[in-house]
Amino acid sequence: VPRVGSLGEDALVAAVIAGFRSRSAQTAPAWLTVGPGDDAAVIDIAALSAGGSLVATTDTLVEGQDFRQHWSSPADVGVKVAAQNFADIAAMGATPAVLLVSLAIPSSADSAFAESLAEGLDEECRRAGAIVAGGDVSEADAIVITGTALGVLAPGRSAVLRSGARPGDVVAVAGTLGRSAAGWALLEHGYRGTDGRMRDLIAAHQRPQPPYEAGPAAAAAGASAMIDTSDGLIRDATRITAASGVVIDLDSAALAPPADLERAAELLKEHDPAAWVLTGGEDHALLACFDPARDRPAAFVRIGQVRDGKPAVLLDGRPWTSDPGWRHFNS
Amino acid sequence: VPRVGSLGEDALVAAVIAGFRSRSAQTAPAWLTVGPGDDAAVIDIAALSAGGSLVATTDTLVEGQDFRQHWSSPADVGVKVAAQNFADIAAMGATPAVLLVSLAIPSSADSAFAESLAEGLDEECRRAGAIVAGGDVSEADAIVITGTALGVLAPGRSAVLRSGARPGDVVAVAGTLGRSAAGWALLEHGYRGTDGRMRDLIAAHQRPQPPYEAGPAAAAAGASAMIDTSDGLIRDATRITAASGVVIDLDSAALAPPADLERAAELLKEHDPAAWVLTGGEDHALLACFDPARDRPAAFVRIGQVRDGKPAVLLDGRPWTSDPGWRHFNS
Repeated sequence: VPRVGSLGEDALVAAVIAGFRSRSAQTAPAWLTVGPGDDAAVIDIAALSAGGSLVATTDTLVEGQDFRQHWSSPADVGVKVAAQNFADIAAMGATPAVLLVSLAIPSSADSAFAESLAEGLDEECRRAGAIVAGGDVSEADAIVITGTALGVLAPGRSAVLRSGARPGDVVAVAGTLGRSAAGWALLEHGYRGTDGRMRDLIAAHQRPQPPYEAGPAAAAAGASAMIDTSDGLIRDATRITAASGVVIDLDSAALAPPADLERAAELLKEHDPAAWVLTGGEDHALLACFDPARDRPAAFVRIGQVRDGKPAVLLDGRPWTSDPGWRHFNS
Repeated sequence: VPRVGSLGEDALVAAVIAGFRSRSAQTAPAWLTVGPGDDAAVIDIAALSAGGSLVATTDTLVEGQDFRQHWSSPADVGVKVAAQNFADIAAMGATPAVLLVSLAIPSSADSAFAESLAEGLDEECRRAGAIVAGGDVSEADAIVITGTALGVLAPGRSAVLRSGARPGDVVAVAGTLGRSAAGWALLEHGYRGTDGRMRDLIAAHQRPQPPYEAGPAAAAAGASAMIDTSDGLIRDATRITAASGVVIDLDSAALAPPADLERAAELLKEHDPAAWVLTGGEDHALLACFDPARDRPAAFVRIGQVRDGKPAVLLDGRPWTSDPGWRHFNS
């Protein structure tokens, strides 16, 4: 197996670019004037945006911190870096369009890593309706992958910020909560079983599937605030409360763990499935606030309300603590 | 001194963002609708681009590979990551506008690193006429900084690619060659002298100063091909020859090392100042090809010509080798 270092940077970049090109050749949109391979990508932005605003974000995955190679294939990592960037685009109410990828990798790494990574990036780009438009490869002691995503807002539409939540708004979520955390716990426990529901939780950790379409739908429905749950429901809701100067009061009844999370917690012992739902990260669900007088997109399920008060996130009117007894306390 | 790890990610991100905000508050352009602090930046791209194309690139600096902390201050590193990204924008013929920055940093790092980095980013953004619009911070064992730059082409103008050079074109360069390599050699040698010319060479390594304006000027003058010299004149010229299917023949007389490089080579011994000029990287000069019948922008100095033939870079009609005797061979 050739090692990255034996290829040299130009050859490695060429291999990665070839991977992107072979996948994108048939699907490259007309607005991508120049794709990977020159000093920069060129985008006919008037054709892409049709007068709408451009949305841009960047996010990094670090080996050992954000993924482990024996838990995640390079393709999984590609899916993940694309998904977490595109989720940020969707959380502004925009539609993903472009991904740029910078890969820092040890010279001892298997050169197939880059090819497989490109596969995963491409897969998630297709799901999101986006394309890899450029990249960069450099040498480092550990693998560090940075994605930068560009997206577009519908013409005339404003981005949905964290700061617009108003007392009286409904709090709702599109996508799933706690599945990535449960999958992580199963992997950490060394789960080797064949229960399809447990394998699905592991897959949810390895390949998050943010509900991209729900972002622009929320913006179209006049959402007052939105964020994606990259760090867990309570932590990300806290960011909305801080930016908006409001209280978010969550309803525990709407956040009851589904059967598969209950089952995973039974298998693993000493895990609280409700804590997965409330604090598990990396689901990249979309958490949004809506005027109760207006219709919400079908993807958004009500989980609480916005109240006046010193910024805080409450559960059934009380602060949540990680004390596993909280359910008893609250029931 | 607080350590990064003691701050927590939110506090660190807040500190970095505050650094960007305090510097950008007075100068944020009207087209930057949402700057750092939400899930993504929002850009009124119609106002920014006025119908011209968007250009996007990403590039990474890795501690130990691309910079050393005892040779480069965090502000130097900030200048460098901005400069190498903006140079790629300029090399397409575009004008830099936006920088996104992703910082991976050990939790043991001094938290002042991020603030000082932001200072350097801001300084180079000002020089380039751009602004930091967003960022991301994560934890890693070594410092890895990825910049993503966005720029715009003048309305109706096409990007200048690597692939457009034609036999008969003049080859010309804007900016300096070999100064970064000479500065690096002085640092490696532990130069502690006070010769202002030597200090300037060291500064050229620590804070490259690409001639950004020359990029759009070359595009306006109809440049047929362009690249920035991030990996050295010969290596980057080779990329033009490969993409264009031509020979580039450089004139040694036009590439004679200036007096300060000769002086540095004398000081250090066993260094060939001509090799710095021909192969030294990180100057981020702009190398471009022009129709000889048309006027070139004043910043571009003629250093050779494009010929027909199997893609290669020659010096005075012959392949260059690193043999220090090449000058005798060629004179």
